[in-house]
Amino acid sequence: MTLNPADDTFAARLRQTLPEAVFRPAEPRYLEEPRGRWSGQCGLLALPRNVDEVAALVRAAAEVRVPVLPYGGGTGLVGGQIMSDGPAPLIVSLERVAAIRGVYPTENVLIAEAGAILAEVQAAAAEAGRLFPLSLAAEGTARIGGNLSTNAGGTGVLRYGNARDLCLGLEAVLPDGRIWHGLSRLRKDNTGYDLRDLLIGAEGTLGIITAATLKLFSRPAGEGTALFVVPDPQAAIDLLSLARDRLGEGVSAFELIAGQGLRFLADELPDIRQPFATPPDWCVLIELGLSRGLDPEEALAGLFEAALERDLTSGGLIAQSEGQRAAFWAVREQIPAANRRIGAVSSHDISVPISRIPEFIAEGDRIVAGLGDFRVNCFGHLGDGNLHYNVFPAPGRSKADHVNQRDAVKYAVHDLVHSMGGSVSAEHGIGRLKVEDLERYGDPVKLDAMRAIKAALDPLGIMNPGAVLRA
Amino acid sequence: MTLNPADDTFAARLRQTLPEAVFRPAEPRYLEEPRGRWSGQCGLLALPRNVDEVAALVRAAAEVRVPVLPYGGGTGLVGGQIMSDGPAPLIVSLERVAAIRGVYPTENVLIAEAGAILAEVQAAAAEAGRLFPLSLAAEGTARIGGNLSTNAGGTGVLRYGNARDLCLGLEAVLPDGRIWHGLSRLRKDNTGYDLRDLLIGAEGTLGIITAATLKLFSRPAGEGTALFVVPDPQAAIDLLSLARDRLGEGVSAFELIAGQGLRFLADELPDIRQPFATPPDWCVLIELGLSRGLDPEEALAGLFEAALERDLTSGGLIAQSEGQRAAFWAVREQIPAANRRIGAVSSHDISVPISRIPEFIAEGDRIVAGLGDFRVNCFGHLGDGNLHYNVFPAPGRSKADHVNQRDAVKYAVHDLVHSMGGSVSAEHGIGRLKVEDLERYGDPVKLDAMRAIKAALDPLGIMNPGAVLRA
Repeated sequence: MTLNPADDTFAARLRQTLPEAVFRPAEPRYLEEPRGRWSGQCGLLALPRNVDEVAALVRAAAEVRVPVLPYGGGTGLVGGQIMSDGPAPLIVSLERVAAIRGVYPTENVLIAEAGAILAEVQAAAAEAGRLFPLSLAAEGTARIGGNLSTNAGGTGVLRYGNARDLCLGLEAVLPDGRIWHGLSRLRKDNTGYDLRDLLIGAEGTLGIITAATLKLFSRPAGEGTALFVVPDPQAAIDLLSLARDRLGEGVSAFELIAGQGLRFLADELPDIRQPFATPPDWCVLIELGLSRGLDPEEALAGLFEAALERDLTSGGLIAQSEGQRAAFWAVREQIPAANRRIGAVSSHDISVPISRIPEFIAEGDRIVAGLGDFRVNCFGHLGDGNLHYNVFPAPGRSKADHVNQRDAVKYAVHDLVHSMGGSVSAEHGIGRLKVEDLERYGDPVKLDAMRAIKAALDPLGIMNPGAVLRA
Repeated sequence: MTLNPADDTFAARLRQTLPEAVFRPAEPRYLEEPRGRWSGQCGLLALPRNVDEVAALVRAAAEVRVPVLPYGGGTGLVGGQIMSDGPAPLIVSLERVAAIRGVYPTENVLIAEAGAILAEVQAAAAEAGRLFPLSLAAEGTARIGGNLSTNAGGTGVLRYGNARDLCLGLEAVLPDGRIWHGLSRLRKDNTGYDLRDLLIGAEGTLGIITAATLKLFSRPAGEGTALFVVPDPQAAIDLLSLARDRLGEGVSAFELIAGQGLRFLADELPDIRQPFATPPDWCVLIELGLSRGLDPEEALAGLFEAALERDLTSGGLIAQSEGQRAAFWAVREQIPAANRRIGAVSSHDISVPISRIPEFIAEGDRIVAGLGDFRVNCFGHLGDGNLHYNVFPAPGRSKADHVNQRDAVKYAVHDLVHSMGGSVSAEHGIGRLKVEDLERYGDPVKLDAMRAIKAALDPLGIMNPGAVLRA
């Protein structure tokens, strides 16, 4: 069975039932992705204004077997939003289905349409005196439907979970064009299979999420941020245990930063203020969000003393103002920008069981050193066991000098991750970039179950074909 | 396509490949369920000792299309563990696949086999200085595989989530007898569809969970428990908001108790010490679990004062000892036992959006009063929007007097719940008791998707046939 392109005949057919305003020529941004590895193609771009128009588009595509490419903010890092070959797809952008449908502070619930930008969802929650804790670098552009379709992670996972954990219900258009009305505001509902979590993380291959019920949280009464220098990754892990023993869920973020990352930042983005006169080999950014009666600065000072006693830190900085807190975060958040300027030979979004992180870093460095003269910048969400382990050329060389080594580096790192019970895609998903990795490392029984589910829900194979599973 | 009974021929066939020790005559307990509404049948009882034996049993059943009934602790309240008609099943009890495979305190992770009793899992976590927060009345008998298969709720959901939220990975035997090795210890892993959450809550209809990776938590440094008298359910909800604004995740439980429940307890279980001289119409049990630096009794006293100022309470008791804490919990936890002695005309495990609870209770009482001379005991997990809304005969009458009204009461309550965007099975699941309710109230698009998934993963229809979906 083959798919057909979204050609002029198909466009003419759609225009008979949907208003002209739904269609627009595809600007280049719909055909690009952040890493610039692919450029996409587009038969027809549709910007539906509501779920019924989304459903009409999918129904029409199903009738003549045209591939449908759901499009959110376009910030995905694994090519899930880009089809560079095969029949030209119908791109369905959710950007106009973007309302906040309702906020229910008493219930700690917010209902947002898929096209709402993540930062707007955060702002709507804040306006109601609540917190929507999903937070990631692309939050000013990424849309909540895409965040859910990719089960986005970010810096809030340690305390609040992944996007999956922040969703109570969905409205979605399934591959046959029917609408599932599942926008539950319930915390408990055990009536049948968990279709919600099946669509979350399916990267648009099982349907199009059009709206979601999201969980909100109380805002912490006080927040504090610190940078602690740690002797090594093991000490960082022990420091996290110590912090949680003392402060429980009050630990909101725990990010590892390597000296290499600070040096890249100093070289590439000298305007970002460096926290330490000399970059330490390792430091961690700790954020606390505490309830009434606890002072975050005092709690951080107490934690520092306890850590010092146990040789888990040799120095630290506790932010004394909101400005300093923002400055500490800027260090963490600008590291990816510095990385991009240098240009990685190979980037890896990996996770391993937390207790095995020191072993992974040591062994990874040894393996990478054996492959050539590289620099490693390893940083990220230590508390989740999720590191961005990125390999860069030596000073004076560029990634172009190492194109033919990219796969060797990637497989060496991924083989190590896999051997340690880890994941080769911790938070970015599979998209099209990692289809082969999934086939290589995935459990074969799970893969067969995934294929069976895909065939059952999308028998025509029109939904984002080629993403996650080979088309 | 019809199923075949697990008859002598089948038993003989199994005995060729599996040791005799795996089989045992089925004692009555395998054929009973707590509410005594059904008695089950059994062609053959198997007690496999490891996942390979579970797989061999399922493979053999698939070969000759014999129904497989997975069996945990037998505490389910909706008949998911009982087949009373159709071909006699192969009952696969997981009670011998019950080891704690590993505890990883640094990772806040524990791996338990499906047959481990919930209380044993809690104890293993406690021994490692950690908390496994799933907690429910049947925890001394229920097994973790069943807890996950039914996505169990209980009193810890408010802070820690349902069973689903406490699981990182699974090992399971799928309906074709193959083993999915998914015991991930990872907090982040975005490699493909969420098979874990599909099996969780599927009540054994998509496979048999044989082991699970579970999330552990830091133990709170201090705990406190109180009973606050509230004027009405709305005040209880406002009190919960107030408590969370002050204490965030420190609020560990928030349970509504009706005067009717206290009176039932006084009548039926007079040994349970009554907390109030005169039962108030409504009270709430609040539990706090706080981190270092906060005193739970002080926090409860502060909350009480703030609530008093806002007319959200008229009196309260703050436990002054562990003994008093246990006594307050005994009141809450013995209410179901008192209910059983009286005998409900109809019991309802429902949830509605939290802000609509006062309206639900008022309207429910009005509707039930219109149906006859009944007493309502409404209690439960208010913070989750989950109430056990149970209808009892008037004093001097018994449930036997109202058998022919049971359906009318049930549908009246469920129609109301459904009209308010609620669920007719908040935490107990569908089993066989609520298959018709699911068909009546479930979203038809979701139901079709469920049927397609069932057919894709269990094309022979052998896994717990008749549960969740009509066979």
